[in-house]
Amino acid sequence: MRTDGRNYDELRRVEIIRDYIKPAEGSVFISIGDTRVICTATVEEKVPPFLRNSGKGWITAEYSMLPRATGVRTIREASKGKVTGRTMEIQRLIGRALRSVVDLKALGERTLWIDCDVIQADGGTRTTAITGAFVAMVDALIPLFEKKALKKFPVKDFLAATSVGIIGEKACLDLCYEEDSSAVVDMNVIMTGKGKYVEIQGTGEENPFTPEQLQEMLTLARKGTAELTVIQKQLLGNNAEFIGGNNG
Amino acid sequence: MRTDGRNYDELRRVEIIRDYIKPAEGSVFISIGDTRVICTATVEEKVPPFLRNSGKGWITAEYSMLPRATGVRTIREASKGKVTGRTMEIQRLIGRALRSVVDLKALGERTLWIDCDVIQADGGTRTTAITGAFVAMVDALIPLFEKKALKKFPVKDFLAATSVGIIGEKACLDLCYEEDSSAVVDMNVIMTGKGKYVEIQGTGEENPFTPEQLQEMLTLARKGTAELTVIQKQLLGNNAEFIGGNNG
Amino acid sequence: MRTDGRNYDELRRVEIIRDYIKPAEGSVFISIGDTRVICTATVEEKVPPFLRNSGKGWITAEYSMLPRATGVRTIREASKGKVTGRTMEIQRLIGRALRSVVDLKALGERTLWIDCDVIQADGGTRTTAITGAFVAMVDALIPLFEKKALKKFPVKDFLAATSVGIIGEKACLDLCYEEDSSAVVDMNVIMTGKGKYVEIQGTGEENPFTPEQLQEMLTLARKGTAELTVIQKQLLGNNAEFIGGNNG
Amino acid sequence: MRTDGRNYDELRRVEIIRDYIKPAEGSVFISIGDTRVICTATVEEKVPPFLRNSGKGWITAEYSMLPRATGVRTIREASKGKVTGRTMEIQRLIGRALRSVVDLKALGERTLWIDCDVIQADGGTRTTAITGAFVAMVDALIPLFEKKALKKFPVKDFLAATSVGIIGEKACLDLCYEEDSSAVVDMNVIMTGKGKYVEIQGTGEENPFTPEQLQEMLTLARKGTAELTVIQKQLLGNNAEFIGGNNG
Amino acid sequence: MRTDGRNYDELRRVEIIRDYIKPAEGSVFISIGDTRVICTATVEEKVPPFLRNSGKGWITAEYSMLPRATGVRTIREASKGKVTGRTMEIQRLIGRALRSVVDLKALGERTLWIDCDVIQADGGTRTTAITGAFVAMVDALIPLFEKKALKKFPVKDFLAATSVGIIGEKACLDLCYEEDSSAVVDMNVIMTGKGKYVEIQGTGEENPFTPEQLQEMLTLARKGTAELTVIQKQLLGNNAEFIGGNNG
Amino acid sequence: MRTDGRNYDELRRVEIIRDYIKPAEGSVFISIGDTRVICTATVEEKVPPFLRNSGKGWITAEYSMLPRATGVRTIREASKGKVTGRTMEIQRLIGRALRSVVDLKALGERTLWIDCDVIQADGGTRTTAITGAFVAMVDALIPLFEKKALKKFPVKDFLAATSVGIIGEKACLDLCYEEDSSAVVDMNVIMTGKGKYVEIQGTGEENPFTPEQLQEMLTLARKGTAELTVIQKQLLGNNAEFIGGNNG
Repeated sequence: MRTDGRNYDELRRVEIIRDYIKPAEGSVFISIGDTRVICTATVEEKVPPFLRNSGKGWITAEYSMLPRATGVRTIREASKGKVTGRTMEIQRLIGRALRSVVDLKALGERTLWIDCDVIQADGGTRTTAITGAFVAMVDALIPLFEKKALKKFPVKDFLAATSVGIIGEKACLDLCYEEDSSAVVDMNVIMTGKGKYVEIQGTGEENPFTPEQLQEMLTLARKGTAELTVIQKQLLGNNAEFIGGNNG
Repeated sequence: MRTDGRNYDELRRVEIIRDYIKPAEGSVFISIGDTRVICTATVEEKVPPFLRNSGKGWITAEYSMLPRATGVRTIREASKGKVTGRTMEIQRLIGRALRSVVDLKALGERTLWIDCDVIQADGGTRTTAITGAFVAMVDALIPLFEKKALKKFPVKDFLAATSVGIIGEKACLDLCYEEDSSAVVDMNVIMTGKGKYVEIQGTGEENPFTPEQLQEMLTLARKGTAELTVIQKQLLGNNAEFIGGNNG
Repeated sequence: MRTDGRNYDELRRVEIIRDYIKPAEGSVFISIGDTRVICTATVEEKVPPFLRNSGKGWITAEYSMLPRATGVRTIREASKGKVTGRTMEIQRLIGRALRSVVDLKALGERTLWIDCDVIQADGGTRTTAITGAFVAMVDALIPLFEKKALKKFPVKDFLAATSVGIIGEKACLDLCYEEDSSAVVDMNVIMTGKGKYVEIQGTGEENPFTPEQLQEMLTLARKGTAELTVIQKQLLGNNAEFIGGNNG
Repeated sequence: MRTDGRNYDELRRVEIIRDYIKPAEGSVFISIGDTRVICTATVEEKVPPFLRNSGKGWITAEYSMLPRATGVRTIREASKGKVTGRTMEIQRLIGRALRSVVDLKALGERTLWIDCDVIQADGGTRTTAITGAFVAMVDALIPLFEKKALKKFPVKDFLAATSVGIIGEKACLDLCYEEDSSAVVDMNVIMTGKGKYVEIQGTGEENPFTPEQLQEMLTLARKGTAELTVIQKQLLGNNAEFIGGNNG
Repeated sequence: MRTDGRNYDELRRVEIIRDYIKPAEGSVFISIGDTRVICTATVEEKVPPFLRNSGKGWITAEYSMLPRATGVRTIREASKGKVTGRTMEIQRLIGRALRSVVDLKALGERTLWIDCDVIQADGGTRTTAITGAFVAMVDALIPLFEKKALKKFPVKDFLAATSVGIIGEKACLDLCYEEDSSAVVDMNVIMTGKGKYVEIQGTGEENPFTPEQLQEMLTLARKGTAELTVIQKQLLGNNAEFIGGNNG
Repeated sequence: MRTDGRNYDELRRVEIIRDYIKPAEGSVFISIGDTRVICTATVEEKVPPFLRNSGKGWITAEYSMLPRATGVRTIREASKGKVTGRTMEIQRLIGRALRSVVDLKALGERTLWIDCDVIQADGGTRTTAITGAFVAMVDALIPLFEKKALKKFPVKDFLAATSVGIIGEKACLDLCYEEDSSAVVDMNVIMTGKGKYVEIQGTGEENPFTPEQLQEMLTLARKGTAELTVIQKQLLGNNAEFIGGNNG
């Protein structure tokens, strides 16, 4: 039995609110269990130097946690004067994940800035951020597509992420903080709507894991991301059809 | 007529939600018009070096804005590696203001960390932060007082803040961003529940102002902060009685 | 009786030496009591990015203290690798104050860099810096005006600043460090030669103050800044006539 | 056919030189193809604050590249004043990997500092660093064990790492830089001597990958790490017996 | 003929004012030609970690220039967030030079902080700083010696510094900025009152120099530093006798 | 007798390997005794801003030590977020020294980046770096000259550096770390192949030195640098003839 009574293959309650922040081009408030993240997407009409005159766009993500998102207050990175290694890893991961489902040529010479700010943290903040940021990104692109600034809708597929882990001997889906702390293996899996892997990051720092355990975790992750994609699709309604469509 | 149809001496709609962030000792979500701030209060059982063995406590505030709180995305201070002058001014102001209504001896050797994170900005973020942070601070202290860790409730008086300005020739209360941008004089006033000044900061960078204009603005500020205090009192209910009380 | 025998409404001894630093376009050594500041004004023939092609100029101020300006050596900000919040507040204040009496259009696309370096500190360093920087700024602009690089003399009015405070129950003018440390209220007031307010910053962190105390302090500040303006005028001699004149 | 004529499941030439740096407790020079890394292990008789009085030790890794390890000179992180996100990810990975095969209790309150400096880079620098650092770590611990400062040899298992990827449609082992640049999927796998996974990091930023491709890559990685472990064992000779042994 | 009419072996006019900054334990204003430096000496009753419980003291120097000490405004190091290489070299040089004539054992576990702030720069700022700092240091130590906090006066010898260079083909003493810019060789020499070398730093970046030119420059430097020592002695009056004396 | 049995005027064993790092335009591995440095030279086809459109080139050097180059691990400057004063001094010295033998006009608008990374340190790292970097620089320039991108070979003379010092009473050549630590005077001398001084830096922090001692040290340094130049010449073979030649 899990600490919150869930089944081993059950996601926590998911809620996504679109258009949460007025000034942003795309924005969602996403909560998965007690993990809550504000994701915004900003369209900037220029690209980083290495892409100038390439005809291609870029997606950059930034991630942060409010100091009291956690039980013990964490020091602000702005006060420390530098971003921690953990934050850098997460923001690189989010950017990479979103880029994997976007046709950067079709995006044109634009940068999408994705900001994920964790308001409350209870495990799985990075996977929650990716799942929410995907919706914010789509929302930021739709007006551009509707006013023909984009010839083709650049999002090629859905994208969702979840965490899995081994607790005791058992593979479990969508770990909350308490579970995450006691898990011997921790794995984040990001998948497309079509069921391909975008990123797998599994760590057995406490306990290296066997090929069989790996397969169990991958199976759970596939189930979890598929369920998240269903939620994203319902939420986007008609707009979901643009994704991966023949809309050139 | 003001841009949003308000009277010259009218506050925007105020909403304060208590206990907004689960892990924090005190937390509120405050919105004044479209300005929205999450304020948390954290109790730390130690003080900065300059107060060790003094028997006195301290209050430190930190302030930040999400990148898309504003119409144009602002670069994160963590990414820049330093806090801007504006942020420093605001966090020093918030800390000073809260300390002015707290008996630091009665607080004992504890630090209150006040975090104000602007989710959406539409003018008056620093005064909104102070008004909300006051409530979060009281909420963080009540459990300490109830379990007798504090002999005396250390909050001596209510505290609220508002902005006033001269738009055209007219003094106005509680400027939204659009008004603030066009105001020739901009003033922030922080007052206690008993109607004393804690801080006055008035700037006529565009247009120095006369003593008469100063008086008009001070009158509006008094009205605005009094109304905010009424809202704080209602919200705190019975707990409001601890403030400034004979509870020693 | 005040610690140095002055009357409650009396300034300390003021001395201003012009052309103190040979390489600078404008420079003064100003002492008010034992507070001594070197102020220089530098003319740079370009503006910050946000003003390019606007036809307008800009004024930026920087402020620093020598490590032994104070009784206890303060660590250099260069060694710490960052500017403190106090310094940022002061340099923003100085810049804002000087800009309030300058017609930035008439200045043209130039930046005035104002540097205020406190050699010895005995209270009121920021107000002393502003009073001295005003003279250095005028001196830096006169040659430009005389060689017709400026069509109109851009300085619209005199500018002087002083501090006032409540010591015990009594409002006092121009606090020295010892008085400042024991004052319950501390206020800086910056006024134009015509008697308008440019900036009011009053803080009652130790003790919130009443409207009556505010009026007493404002009256003293008016007297003090008026006297400082008389000294500035005498010092500038004929050049004083350019200020605010019909010199187009 | 691969660019350097290797078979798809073939490692590049591996060379490891022990005791390469005289002053270090453990040090190796490892080259895999044209990738060359100097790995040193330093024993420090104290632990980071979070482990004080826990009886447990710690392993921290740092990674860097000489500016001309690469075809285009990279700017030194010391000159930039900060460590890049890529470096942080790699040093966190190396530390985590080594800790997974060390009994930190048996290590006692000591820190092992692992330094991996890439002298020449031709793909796979992080996996080469891990493979070499493992040997340097063992060498640094042996003298401690021999002089009885360690009651039990703390290294529980061998550790080796390699990269795999999809080039065109084909899974390949141990990518050189040229292959890595053109790979559509890139995966780093770290395994123990007993064939368990310590870390899997696979990214299909350019092209999400199928479950079948994942299995092919995992099979190659297993073969490659097993071969590297054979080389490590031969090199360590008799000392290899301490690893995972009943030496308590 | 030199640009300012001096003879090739002639120092510029030297002026040293003692007790220039009230709050500092020792302080001088030194001008050599148009180079002006404020030097202060601070006594701190503790030492850096590497000297704790060694019974020995330390001397640390910091050096800075006001932005308009020079013809073109230089950016403040505090604003840049780091100290330049030039500044670091100079402050290390000043500290090393002063330590060479101080018996650090006799100083006891104290740190002398030497601050040299260049108010106006016209060549030779580092040598001027050393010559002035020596006097400030002696002045800071005398009260300690007089109140018996020091058993022995720790200053063993006088210390003065000057610059020499090759202009065209001619060796010259005490270069001003204009000469320094056109010199093909530039050398700073620091000598004790007894005529020994403490530091020689000669650079022929533009033109390597011959052994004969080196000898000519060393001869001039000896003459210049001897003259500076005479001035220091006169200025210190009776206190000069403590230096290197049998005062144990 | 010296600690390693050398004569007082004897260099340690010198070894220089050319073309040590494949990707670099010029690179050497130099060892002098147990001091080992990798030096690379990179040609960049642009110059720093202050030289744009001047027709002149530039040489910039960077220097670093691996953490375990030394007996006690030194913290990485990248981790500290800043370069130490010692490193800055050394990299400025190396750059200045190399520029002194290069005709920057003949180099054209190019920057040579010289990177010196100390793999193992046993005294004299900066002089070893200079001696090695000279060879790497020549090797980087030869291909440019051979393909006529340079009309004239820009290196005017050989360059080598060594350290000398006073141990006890005796002047000694090429100090190893153990000697360096006990030396009372420490001097680095950089000389051209024609026997001129490029830089002399002598410090008697522990013990000021006499003119006679200075002469003895200069004589040894002359002998040592001459021997190093012989080694450089042999190593460069025919290419040595380009240096200082009539190759216009």
